[in-house]
Amino acid sequence: MKKKVLKALTEARDGYLSGQALCDALAVSRTAVWKVINQLKEEGYQIESVPHRGYRILKRPDVVTAEEIGSRLQTETIGRQVVFYDVIDSTNNEAKRLAETGAADGTLVVTELQEHGKGRRGRGWVTPAKASIMMSLVLRPQIRPEHASSVTLVMGLAVAEACREFCKVDARIKWPNDVVVDGRKICGILTELSSEVDYINYLVIGTGINANLTELPLEIAATATSLTLQTGMKIDRAGLIAACLERFETYYRKFLQTEDVSLLLLQYNALLAGKEGRVCVLEPGKEYIGTSHGINERGELLVEREDGTIERVYAGEVSVRGIYGYV
Amino acid sequence: MKKKVLKALTEARDGYLSGQALCDALAVSRTAVWKVINQLKEEGYQIESVPHRGYRILKRPDVVTAEEIGSRLQTETIGRQVVFYDVIDSTNNEAKRLAETGAADGTLVVTELQEHGKGRRGRGWVTPAKASIMMSLVLRPQIRPEHASSVTLVMGLAVAEACREFCKVDARIKWPNDVVVDGRKICGILTELSSEVDYINYLVIGTGINANLTELPLEIAATATSLTLQTGMKIDRAGLIAACLERFETYYRKFLQTEDVSLLLLQYNALLAGKEGRVCVLEPGKEYIGTSHGINERGELLVEREDGTIERVYAGEVSVRGIYGYV
Repeated sequence: MKKKVLKALTEARDGYLSGQALCDALAVSRTAVWKVINQLKEEGYQIESVPHRGYRILKRPDVVTAEEIGSRLQTETIGRQVVFYDVIDSTNNEAKRLAETGAADGTLVVTELQEHGKGRRGRGWVTPAKASIMMSLVLRPQIRPEHASSVTLVMGLAVAEACREFCKVDARIKWPNDVVVDGRKICGILTELSSEVDYINYLVIGTGINANLTELPLEIAATATSLTLQTGMKIDRAGLIAACLERFETYYRKFLQTEDVSLLLLQYNALLAGKEGRVCVLEPGKEYIGTSHGINERGELLVEREDGTIERVYAGEVSVRGIYGYV
Repeated sequence: MKKKVLKALTEARDGYLSGQALCDALAVSRTAVWKVINQLKEEGYQIESVPHRGYRILKRPDVVTAEEIGSRLQTETIGRQVVFYDVIDSTNNEAKRLAETGAADGTLVVTELQEHGKGRRGRGWVTPAKASIMMSLVLRPQIRPEHASSVTLVMGLAVAEACREFCKVDARIKWPNDVVVDGRKICGILTELSSEVDYINYLVIGTGINANLTELPLEIAATATSLTLQTGMKIDRAGLIAACLERFETYYRKFLQTEDVSLLLLQYNALLAGKEGRVCVLEPGKEYIGTSHGINERGELLVEREDGTIERVYAGEVSVRGIYGYV
């Protein structure tokens, strides 16, 4: 109900929506509408009420509640269900728990504070409260498990584009898991999979974005940045989440068509950090320098070695460095 | 403590172990030993006590408790922790929950009754109480996720060999997930994986064995059988579990050495049902007949088509039938 009122107000053409129109659209009484409007005001929404015109949202609070995100999403399956927590251990862990108990394809988990944020391989991921975006999607693609890793690339592309368009920053993709601005990390993506040999139970894709951080912890200050630090502006987090998820839905559908990124190659490589630049590839027991030619349809990074041979670098135990601002 | 007493009694050389020896070995009082012996008797163990010789187990109840299994296992990591439940939704689900909260590599989950037993792709798996073996192992191999599917083959080999040696039946492997006797299923294996792109969080391998079923549900009577129906004998389930896990540990180590089944190929193919026989391969949109030449080191089934070409069949959306007793 609250989400529906918010959505109707958000989508009102000239900004105003009459109380009667709200009653009709939602099939509830004037009193019910009035109660919800008051609840919203208590939560920090500034809503004016003008005779003969109706209600209008003047200012939204910077919240990432299920209602706020839901009211701004134009997607079909991605984020159709939003689950919000003030505090949670980690959105990926919660998404996995929800998936185990039947959460639908596209369910989004969001929080204001992660107590045990997760980086890759069980490493930590530090995020101050109420300043970051921490979200995890539950997906149930009917694809082969070995094709699932490219979903990370799809999300990277969606986040980079959303940051560019919504926040006007020069965001680029640091293959395979990060998005960078000015060579410094603003987003990390962690994809986890529950599968049988030939069947995906579910996939959880976690995305952390440094949105409104005005200071960075000392240990990452040299290698990370935030959208606020880059733009000098406060980021509308719910709006950025919606921008990310809308692009993700579009690209994810293209990915599902072919089970690879062939339909996204041009866009992806156009936003790839360091393309045609020199990279240093570190694999276990092997290290070499070459030129990055972007990814292929399977999501592998093509690196031309000095002798002209092309290496296809798989997003495995490998680190590609040197061309970006951080290692 | 109970497990230690059971293990000491189980491993006693001439069958007898004096109360004093038990006290010394476990560093507890005579009263403590006596209490445990009485507990065991209450649980159905027949234990005689002979002056000057000590205690001896005359008969063990057919239970699959943590103590009973633990007292009979000679493994190092596999089953070092055993968790037993009278009733659980599914041992795979419980193993996954335990793995999420940190269960060690090798943890075994066993139950007497599954309320929602799991077959592949979310299908059900029917198992009457107290007659079957239902167990799931938590593994944490440091291998690439795409190599994990072969662990199913390793367990298939271990179960087939254990059934042959422990129960004296002509058990054979039905690639990739089942073990059959006389062309009928006695065992199904379901492997599930939680992973990041290049990293395995954990792997759960569930094994269901039709042990002491004296009747089979009508819908599976034509395609399944049980060890009791095949041998006319009651199966010592804890003993069979120990036999499976000991073989599994040995073969699993060989698998980890190479991350494939190259060191197990001869043994596996020797026990493969229908090897060198005719098979019908059903893939989505494709069906053909050929001759099975067994698996290769990557665990793919090699099928020679009528024109002489060799197909490598991946354990994916494929069904191999016709040569076994059931489809």
